[in-house]
Amino acid sequence: MIAVLKRNAGQEDKEKVIRVIKEENFDVHPIQGVEKTIIGVLGNQNNRTKLKEKLMTMSCVEKVVLILDPYKLTSWNFKQEKTVIDLGDDVKIGGSELTIMAGPCSVESREQLLKTAEIVKTGGAKILRGGAFKPRTSPYSFQGLGEEGLKILSEAREKTGLKIITELMDIEHIDVVCQYTDIIQIGARNMQNYSLLKEIGKLNKPVMLKRGMAATIKEWLLAAEYIMNEGNHNVILCERGVRTFGEETRNTMDLSSIPLVQQLSHLPVIADPSHGTGRWELVTPVARAAAAVGADGIMVEVHPEPENALSDGPQSLKPEKYYSMMVEIAAISKTLYSFESSEKKIAYV
Amino acid sequence: MIAVLKRNAGQEDKEKVIRVIKEENFDVHPIQGVEKTIIGVLGNQNNRTKLKEKLMTMSCVEKVVLILDPYKLTSWNFKQEKTVIDLGDDVKIGGSELTIMAGPCSVESREQLLKTAEIVKTGGAKILRGGAFKPRTSPYSFQGLGEEGLKILSEAREKTGLKIITELMDIEHIDVVCQYTDIIQIGARNMQNYSLLKEIGKLNKPVMLKRGMAATIKEWLLAAEYIMNEGNHNVILCERGVRTFGEETRNTMDLSSIPLVQQLSHLPVIADPSHGTGRWELVTPVARAAAAVGADGIMVEVHPEPENALSDGPQSLKPEKYYSMMVEIAAISKTLYSFESSEKKIAYV
Amino acid sequence: MIAVLKRNAGQEDKEKVIRVIKEENFDVHPIQGVEKTIIGVLGNQNNRTKLKEKLMTMSCVEKVVLILDPYKLTSWNFKQEKTVIDLGDDVKIGGSELTIMAGPCSVESREQLLKTAEIVKTGGAKILRGGAFKPRTSPYSFQGLGEEGLKILSEAREKTGLKIITELMDIEHIDVVCQYTDIIQIGARNMQNYSLLKEIGKLNKPVMLKRGMAATIKEWLLAAEYIMNEGNHNVILCERGVRTFGEETRNTMDLSSIPLVQQLSHLPVIADPSHGTGRWELVTPVARAAAAVGADGIMVEVHPEPENALSDGPQSLKPEKYYSMMVEIAAISKTLYSFESSEKKIAYV
Amino acid sequence: MIAVLKRNAGQEDKEKVIRVIKEENFDVHPIQGVEKTIIGVLGNQNNRTKLKEKLMTMSCVEKVVLILDPYKLTSWNFKQEKTVIDLGDDVKIGGSELTIMAGPCSVESREQLLKTAEIVKTGGAKILRGGAFKPRTSPYSFQGLGEEGLKILSEAREKTGLKIITELMDIEHIDVVCQYTDIIQIGARNMQNYSLLKEIGKLNKPVMLKRGMAATIKEWLLAAEYIMNEGNHNVILCERGVRTFGEETRNTMDLSSIPLVQQLSHLPVIADPSHGTGRWELVTPVARAAAAVGADGIMVEVHPEPENALSDGPQSLKPEKYYSMMVEIAAISKTLYSFESSEKKIAYV
Repeated sequence: MIAVLKRNAGQEDKEKVIRVIKEENFDVHPIQGVEKTIIGVLGNQNNRTKLKEKLMTMSCVEKVVLILDPYKLTSWNFKQEKTVIDLGDDVKIGGSELTIMAGPCSVESREQLLKTAEIVKTGGAKILRGGAFKPRTSPYSFQGLGEEGLKILSEAREKTGLKIITELMDIEHIDVVCQYTDIIQIGARNMQNYSLLKEIGKLNKPVMLKRGMAATIKEWLLAAEYIMNEGNHNVILCERGVRTFGEETRNTMDLSSIPLVQQLSHLPVIADPSHGTGRWELVTPVARAAAAVGADGIMVEVHPEPENALSDGPQSLKPEKYYSMMVEIAAISKTLYSFESSEKKIAYV
Repeated sequence: MIAVLKRNAGQEDKEKVIRVIKEENFDVHPIQGVEKTIIGVLGNQNNRTKLKEKLMTMSCVEKVVLILDPYKLTSWNFKQEKTVIDLGDDVKIGGSELTIMAGPCSVESREQLLKTAEIVKTGGAKILRGGAFKPRTSPYSFQGLGEEGLKILSEAREKTGLKIITELMDIEHIDVVCQYTDIIQIGARNMQNYSLLKEIGKLNKPVMLKRGMAATIKEWLLAAEYIMNEGNHNVILCERGVRTFGEETRNTMDLSSIPLVQQLSHLPVIADPSHGTGRWELVTPVARAAAAVGADGIMVEVHPEPENALSDGPQSLKPEKYYSMMVEIAAISKTLYSFESSEKKIAYV
Repeated sequence: MIAVLKRNAGQEDKEKVIRVIKEENFDVHPIQGVEKTIIGVLGNQNNRTKLKEKLMTMSCVEKVVLILDPYKLTSWNFKQEKTVIDLGDDVKIGGSELTIMAGPCSVESREQLLKTAEIVKTGGAKILRGGAFKPRTSPYSFQGLGEEGLKILSEAREKTGLKIITELMDIEHIDVVCQYTDIIQIGARNMQNYSLLKEIGKLNKPVMLKRGMAATIKEWLLAAEYIMNEGNHNVILCERGVRTFGEETRNTMDLSSIPLVQQLSHLPVIADPSHGTGRWELVTPVARAAAAVGADGIMVEVHPEPENALSDGPQSLKPEKYYSMMVEIAAISKTLYSFESSEKKIAYV
Repeated sequence: MIAVLKRNAGQEDKEKVIRVIKEENFDVHPIQGVEKTIIGVLGNQNNRTKLKEKLMTMSCVEKVVLILDPYKLTSWNFKQEKTVIDLGDDVKIGGSELTIMAGPCSVESREQLLKTAEIVKTGGAKILRGGAFKPRTSPYSFQGLGEEGLKILSEAREKTGLKIITELMDIEHIDVVCQYTDIIQIGARNMQNYSLLKEIGKLNKPVMLKRGMAATIKEWLLAAEYIMNEGNHNVILCERGVRTFGEETRNTMDLSSIPLVQQLSHLPVIADPSHGTGRWELVTPVARAAAAVGADGIMVEVHPEPENALSDGPQSLKPEKYYSMMVEIAAISKTLYSFESSEKKIAYV
């Protein structure tokens, strides 16, 4: 940590700052510049947020700059091998293949889901998505089928062999959701629901953590730390677009976050172009871009009849669009793997 | 609702759109423009989100514009009198006085809190804030004292007569928090934790709902609808700054949201300049601005020794700063009330 | 245009609104809903901004929604064939090939530029970029070599056969810049410098218009309209990232804007991953994504020794990185063209 | 400046970084932490941007943190007294009074402007605003009356004694605009039109520089440095709202920027609630807030008949609204000055 003193700070201020730092058991390395004094602080990492805030309350301190990243368990420093989530039956996330998750926004009925599951499987995806508990912006919108929806998902898994991912919204539904799903999804609105993250951290189940609508990379990784810190290291990250001033798309897909996170962390990163754009016409090109940028997987909304969907119809692909998207991203992914081996070494070390 | 057809939509498209609308039991009013056709849709409000999404999936539809606001219970249309939250002992929010809530970010110890409570009372605030359960960005930061903290808050209430506001983070702590607090605070990170909002909606306790970091006015009011829809109409809104590209302050305080929400809703709106700026030097001027813009109250962080705070020290006021802020906002508030009677009529009708 | 009246608007208000609309020579189609009245407005497009603002000042009007897009010359409605900018010698932008522009941020010296030009050519790009007039955030940073720089660019063109693109910052340098360059670049900071846009509109020279840091798609296309409205239809658009709350990258690359603009406009769209990310480690993955999303070209910063660059070193590729990027995007582009023919028809009609 | 080396940087990397720093004639102070090495850099400020970018291109360097602010002439360090712009006839900006600028968005006709000038004067403002050259988002909107408009402004000045402020959009109109105006306004869209800023820097005329739509405080002050660096120190800053995700207002007024800039700079800062909100119903409350936050002045749009304005009608105040706003902000300003003396000392030292 570096404390920068204000231009007009005197010898007494400097000594006071040094005293405060020493009281917290850090070492001090002052550097006297022509215009300002800066004080290097070395030592015990655990205590540093407290010391930082303490220094920032002192009126002679202009700013405090942290040197070490706040992440621990998510970083390459903690673990030098890429995390691969193995769901069994040769379905993996973070390995050498682009993993596709597809399905409807919500489970609406047995018929709708089973039909979609067949389409999803035919297209080549390995994981079926579908919401049973839905976080809707308005209390007057469809809120999901609940456990009934989970049972339908489970039936689809039996029929197709697809793995299941579904959203968990609160602690009280942990047991029921875990009973049916292969991966727990934590939605963007709950990315900083720390009570929920801590409980999930006590499970063994893989978790996909969506980036919050206005979350920085740091906050996103720290949310993953909440889960990992309790013991569950099976975390997948999912970029689903951030909120900007743009009015033309539902969100702005931040694709550069994917290679950036891959440089900072060993966790796999998935892209969700359906929520990232909110418009079905943009889903296929952005899915191609996500494959090309190096995402570990892609999650996409598919519906047999988007015009009759109870939620997110406007961003859902029709079956034929989904099939052609699958062909395109497979081709791009194949192209990418032909030259990426060297790249990967550079990116991950 | 208005559906705008694409420029190249033909007679057949138009008929199909009309058929879809009628199937959902809405009435149709097509208007044929020179370049585009628009179709006015009239009828049953409950079903309209479904119809909107359905229309948006149709490739001949360019866009769908909602005419009616999605809010019901929060709007002046539902209730023509300003909501006043009465906490007893003449402490009200939303009435004719500017209500001040002050206190530390976190309850750190009995000594710290009782000392702060005395300061808060001396300055003239009526409500004491203090966090016992803390939503911290990093799992490695201080997480609060839990129930121990709630007991200390309760003791402070007995000693000073101040009312209490404290944050609730999850459903499982509802009972224990309600036992001690006068107002439940829902933090910005949980604004869209709908499971929590629904449970709180079943209580009678007043709730202060902070605006999410990237929430639009519409999303904020709809979050309040989640609470009110379950029966609890004692909702206070709190503007605490939104996230923008700015690096100089922790958030950007959106003060114009206060008169805007007051035009849309009968609920009282509070301003939180401590979180809104993140820097104690800016708290007093922004608190003055909040009073002048017409906020129903102000929440501010005060600490006897910000340099020893376990959280948010950099944005906490020292006692003497707090006292002078209180004098200043009281003077502004008094000035405002001298001419606002006519203004209020305009704003609220 | 649709005018939505406030809930409490009466018959008199409605009549007044209708009168105002008719005075401006528009036709009126009122629709009486259960809760609100909306008034459809048909007619003369030229006058509509004026009428819109007029209606918005009326206290009984809640909002006014435009139905027709404000673009004319940039839209597919004006021209049904994709615009192809032909620079001669088989160098085209917007045609069937991905066009690459590469080179240093600034022309720093004859040696530096000629060396870079050789590298650029070896890698396979067809157009050389290099700034002679530089818009730097601080007046104390390197401001460019001016005409001297333009002469060096011109010499590089002669030696390598590469076409030239360079930035124009003001009207007084139009003649000198046009004398040397093949494409005029208008930077993000000047996207709404309308005096400059109008003057460029009077030329015949191709122009590349970068998206402003906080420009919506609509504002960007309207800036292009300023140029086209004066007669110059040789406009290329360039997405270079927008400003968001993110701190980790210089900007947030909005790749979905590329297919979106291609659906709205016949103009070619280029991506600039160097400015879009600000970090060389992210340039190659984001360039791959830009190729995959369907960009008509890519502009990238290359420097023989980024560590000695006078500007933008941190986002410039070293020669070997540039070469491998070129191989990768060529492979992706080839893959894309293998299936895009059908896609193109869908996107552009 | 501080260079932070990557965790895996070795002794050789460290030596290379030190060599690069010394070559640029800076002094080096390395600090060896447990996990990372940081290198303090002392010396010649002029060269530091170049050194910073050089270090950032080195693959062993994680980040570079600047210690000194990039501002020179705008900062309290350069000038310890608040800048007061004296326009003569006792009209000052930055002195002990809140200065009001009011008038229409555009000069539309002699009648409209002279009538508005009378209203402006009656309300108590000292400066008349009015655009003769208008930067409109669409080329198809009213572009202003040009020199004709300037002559009308000049006539209004003669009749009323009000001072004049009007926008300058390009270098070629400098002479004609200066001939008629008391203050040159540089609009938000031209905040980074550096060629224009440099030319204005050569004049003696006061300049009001509006903050760009997505400009950070640093970029805004550096734009002011462009003007001051050429010799013109008569600069006024104007906060007019920034662009955020909000859809409900035209911009988000960043009122905390005003005390923040006042802490960093001796230049006066004005607030523009008309552009900052875009809605006349919000102008008065936000103007009150601007007065309370400590702005040096307020600029507001007034029109005798907003419903007939050729631009910005929706955000213009009618005469009676303007009069009541003037009464309210005068009262708040008076209240503020009653206790601000001590505050000012704190803020500005």
